[in-house]
Amino acid sequence: MAAADAAGAAIRPYFRAGLAADLKVDQTPVTLADRAAEQAMRSVLAAACPGDGILGEEDGLDRAEARLRWVIDPIDGTRAFITGRPTFGTLIGLLENGVPVLGIIDQPVTGERWIGVRGEATQFTGGFGGQVGTRPCPRLAEAELSCTDPSMFAADPTPWQRLAAAARRVSLGGDCYAYGLLALGQIDVIAEATLKVWDWAALVPVIEGAGGRMTDWTGAPLRAEGDGRAVAVGDPALLAEALRLLGS
Amino acid sequence: MAAADAAGAAIRPYFRAGLAADLKVDQTPVTLADRAAEQAMRSVLAAACPGDGILGEEDGLDRAEARLRWVIDPIDGTRAFITGRPTFGTLIGLLENGVPVLGIIDQPVTGERWIGVRGEATQFTGGFGGQVGTRPCPRLAEAELSCTDPSMFAADPTPWQRLAAAARRVSLGGDCYAYGLLALGQIDVIAEATLKVWDWAALVPVIEGAGGRMTDWTGAPLRAEGDGRAVAVGDPALLAEALRLLGS
Repeated sequence: MAAADAAGAAIRPYFRAGLAADLKVDQTPVTLADRAAEQAMRSVLAAACPGDGILGEEDGLDRAEARLRWVIDPIDGTRAFITGRPTFGTLIGLLENGVPVLGIIDQPVTGERWIGVRGEATQFTGGFGGQVGTRPCPRLAEAELSCTDPSMFAADPTPWQRLAAAARRVSLGGDCYAYGLLALGQIDVIAEATLKVWDWAALVPVIEGAGGRMTDWTGAPLRAEGDGRAVAVGDPALLAEALRLLGS
Repeated sequence: MAAADAAGAAIRPYFRAGLAADLKVDQTPVTLADRAAEQAMRSVLAAACPGDGILGEEDGLDRAEARLRWVIDPIDGTRAFITGRPTFGTLIGLLENGVPVLGIIDQPVTGERWIGVRGEATQFTGGFGGQVGTRPCPRLAEAELSCTDPSMFAADPTPWQRLAAAARRVSLGGDCYAYGLLALGQIDVIAEATLKVWDWAALVPVIEGAGGRMTDWTGAPLRAEGDGRAVAVGDPALLAEALRLLGS
């Protein structure tokens, strides 16, 4: 939590401050805030947990041999951040031998924070209301489906289109914030692709500690060496139908 | 502003409260909050401006003959509201002989509010930072483009695809909130379709009072009897290129 606090302090001065984003070689937008927040988190984690590994989007992997590895994404939802939307988030995950055991989703502008610990109930604090707990929704025909941007499925749009056609309603945008809303029972299913380990490591404990499930498109646990496709459901009973439509 | 306050008070208890949305015949989601807020705004406006017309999404038109007509949308962005995203808004516009002369975008959860008056500088209040004023961006290749959901272009997707291909980056979601961000210089261009008069009446004074332009896809002023296609730009110099790609 000290790492999330440090990241928020690094990020907030840059929000809606009119800086220009530059472009990395992979065309992912990245800002000064991203770099400042990753450095701030790395400093906190290295001081508090000197033996643990740290993997960040910006600065790579330290201590690859450690059993415990922190996986951090200072600004998940850089497009939201750049356009002034308060729906990006800072992600802090902890993997134990590759399995997510702790996750934090922090929204430094709204002050909302989700904390998930494997085997425990997710905690949520924030001033906009909402309570932790996914809602019953066993059928896609009744489900609110979400995705940050369907263009992430450009390589193979059919599975998403099948899922979207079967869902009650689709809403777009949100990045990690949408997974937080799923943990509050506001969204029933999220399908995404092209996720990196720092995009999902923090989400799994938050969602599972709220009663949901998050897997790859075959229903298996997400792995760092996986294909980047993930599905999260609030009601575990919804998972089979979602996986079937996603073509697995 | 009293009407916006009344709408916010009516809406907030329903945000993330877990109610089920029902469906109108046109499939637009609508909630109890929508109806309660429209009633609250109608009461305030009828008491304060008894001679004016009022047009609302839910309850139709009162006093059609009046020169001044309030045009209200209690929850613009119902999908955002239903999924717990704090990026919907309450819209209050005032038309004088069909021309927008006043607009309010109010976000009742974050407390952000934009007020635009024809011929005056837009005002913005809110705790998340940002200052009124669109930013220079004369070329689409440098522009942040936004749209709530490109599926609104399903009837004719080509113009949007041309615009999106030419823009620097595209972000989705936001409804009226994205237009507020354009007025803060965070977004450069927004193109949408299927807008009703209550979707755009409040936006025009906010955007023009921040230095931008908002027109239909031929560059003409938006009209209640128009085709529902609208484009907003922060930098007026960007309008011609956007209109050309939108096929007008």
